[in-house]
Amino acid sequence: MSVKPILFENGACRMIDQRLLPTEEVWIDYTDYQGVAEAIRSMVVRGAPAIGVAAAFGAAFAARDIEADSFDDFMAQFEKCCDFLAATRPTAVNLFWALDRMKAAAQKAKDLPPEQLKKYLLAEACTIANEDEQINRRMGQHGEPLIPQQARILTHCNAGALATGGYGTALGVVRAAAEAGKNISVIADETRPFLQGARLTAWELNRDNIDVTLICDNMAGYLMNKGEIDCVIVGADRIAANGDVANKIGTYNVAILAREHGIPFYVAAPTSTIDLSLSDGSKIPIEERDASEVTHHGGTLLAPDGIKVRNPAFDVTPARLVSAIITENGVAEGNYLENLQRLVNQGE
Amino acid sequence: MSVKPILFENGACRMIDQRLLPTEEVWIDYTDYQGVAEAIRSMVVRGAPAIGVAAAFGAAFAARDIEADSFDDFMAQFEKCCDFLAATRPTAVNLFWALDRMKAAAQKAKDLPPEQLKKYLLAEACTIANEDEQINRRMGQHGEPLIPQQARILTHCNAGALATGGYGTALGVVRAAAEAGKNISVIADETRPFLQGARLTAWELNRDNIDVTLICDNMAGYLMNKGEIDCVIVGADRIAANGDVANKIGTYNVAILAREHGIPFYVAAPTSTIDLSLSDGSKIPIEERDASEVTHHGGTLLAPDGIKVRNPAFDVTPARLVSAIITENGVAEGNYLENLQRLVNQGE
Repeated sequence: MSVKPILFENGACRMIDQRLLPTEEVWIDYTDYQGVAEAIRSMVVRGAPAIGVAAAFGAAFAARDIEADSFDDFMAQFEKCCDFLAATRPTAVNLFWALDRMKAAAQKAKDLPPEQLKKYLLAEACTIANEDEQINRRMGQHGEPLIPQQARILTHCNAGALATGGYGTALGVVRAAAEAGKNISVIADETRPFLQGARLTAWELNRDNIDVTLICDNMAGYLMNKGEIDCVIVGADRIAANGDVANKIGTYNVAILAREHGIPFYVAAPTSTIDLSLSDGSKIPIEERDASEVTHHGGTLLAPDGIKVRNPAFDVTPARLVSAIITENGVAEGNYLENLQRLVNQGE
Repeated sequence: MSVKPILFENGACRMIDQRLLPTEEVWIDYTDYQGVAEAIRSMVVRGAPAIGVAAAFGAAFAARDIEADSFDDFMAQFEKCCDFLAATRPTAVNLFWALDRMKAAAQKAKDLPPEQLKKYLLAEACTIANEDEQINRRMGQHGEPLIPQQARILTHCNAGALATGGYGTALGVVRAAAEAGKNISVIADETRPFLQGARLTAWELNRDNIDVTLICDNMAGYLMNKGEIDCVIVGADRIAANGDVANKIGTYNVAILAREHGIPFYVAAPTSTIDLSLSDGSKIPIEERDASEVTHHGGTLLAPDGIKVRNPAFDVTPARLVSAIITENGVAEGNYLENLQRLVNQGE
């Protein structure tokens, strides 16, 4: 069974420290919303759906600790805590989606006594976590028919079990193809600077006995040109209404290379990643992270001290380069504006 | 003045250990051809022209130590040593070019007494080293007009002073543009797995006060899309007669991205890098190096232990993606088959 990176046990949210994988498997218990916020900010937990799940637990912990005279007072304090959680990372929309869902749950339960309201919100966070794995399994079922027998599948970053409540988005489709008896193999981009491909994708596929070969990000074109890649599948951090896809930096490069070589480029993401409020990808905020992620690995300096660095964490792949978007409600192709709206509404 | 990575001092070939830059500046003295061969194989010295220079010194040392009864005996032993040096790395043609030149020099000096023949070969190695810097300065003069005022220039790997006898090929053109008073800046791809961009290009440009910003290889598309790259310039390890260019892995990706964004893609290389014997790039042998270069940095493991890895060290960029090839004899554009031949013959 694939790993679940976020567990709720004994009143604590346990998360595997994804900064230390694959060399160390360390689980950390979080019991307050400030701790969860720091875990998101520092990338103990990462991956758009997993960030949403973690934030939901953070919100439930915040609610638990609020002392309020009235529901309005509770809600004012709760929204402040949610804003604190929302300020951790700007690009993945699942973070805001999960917090909005927790706020809506609070409104729905406004007439409950405070202790029951707080329990209701904790139950809602657990529901979000459990639903996420189920959503990914449905996504896998919808996406699996797109993966040919014997496919050699390139993926970028980690859109696996570790990036979600379990099973994975892009790697969920890979798992579904493997479970369907297809003899597939994965080529994992190492995904600089944080090395999610080398550290996380390689680790979780290895663990599940799915054949995986690691490459540096700049080797994808070489392998495509030699005919050694049959399709590309990646996750997403936010998808605009027109189908433009924000995902880990380097995804745009891969999409252009795939188009150049006539290789299908698929995106797998839950409908919670689709942001219908943004008309196109140019409106998606792109986080720039600290230079030290590029210049250092562990304690080791990889470049001259003090060198100027750019470190955008995401890029936007235009819809025209995306062959299909796989969600838990089905697959969108062609007219994304119409088809994504349909898939989002179908879930409501 | 730009650094010279290979010096001849007190009878030894001194090379800066490029594996340790930028954190340590260690110079190693080599006094026999086996040592020079190991320096090339283990990448103490790298970069096609620098490999050629090092190999020439290796051949001169081999000649110095030969004890022979006749010139034919000398030549048989000398060719064996040259074969040993040639077997270190397969892709950069400058290695074979330099050894061929040393063998031709031996033939030319066949009537000299043994001690004078040996001195003549050492002088030839020194000439190859000194000529290389002069060639790069001429290349810079030919290439500089292609670089616009205020240009933001992307480069991949290190085609700088460190990759040559001095001044650099691609970075020689950059230096010539800076010397011509153009307010240029460089964006350096870090160039995984060996990080020649992060470690070497950033180091040598910083040292020469040329503005440089480091990015991960997978960020180039993002910056091109934002209009932050005006041109690309790279070196080459071997250029086929039709203009196909073998260069550091990832160059092909950059060339496709540049074409997609309408950005000129230039190659700077001496005519000794042009291999007219190969009709096209498919015939250039591509070295695959050890998996540990991808899975480790220093002593640190970056991926699960024992994971499968691909590690091609070079790729081939088809001539159709190359806007111009800059050599010491002028600039080739358009019909490479004709124009490269003309530039090569011009030097003879």
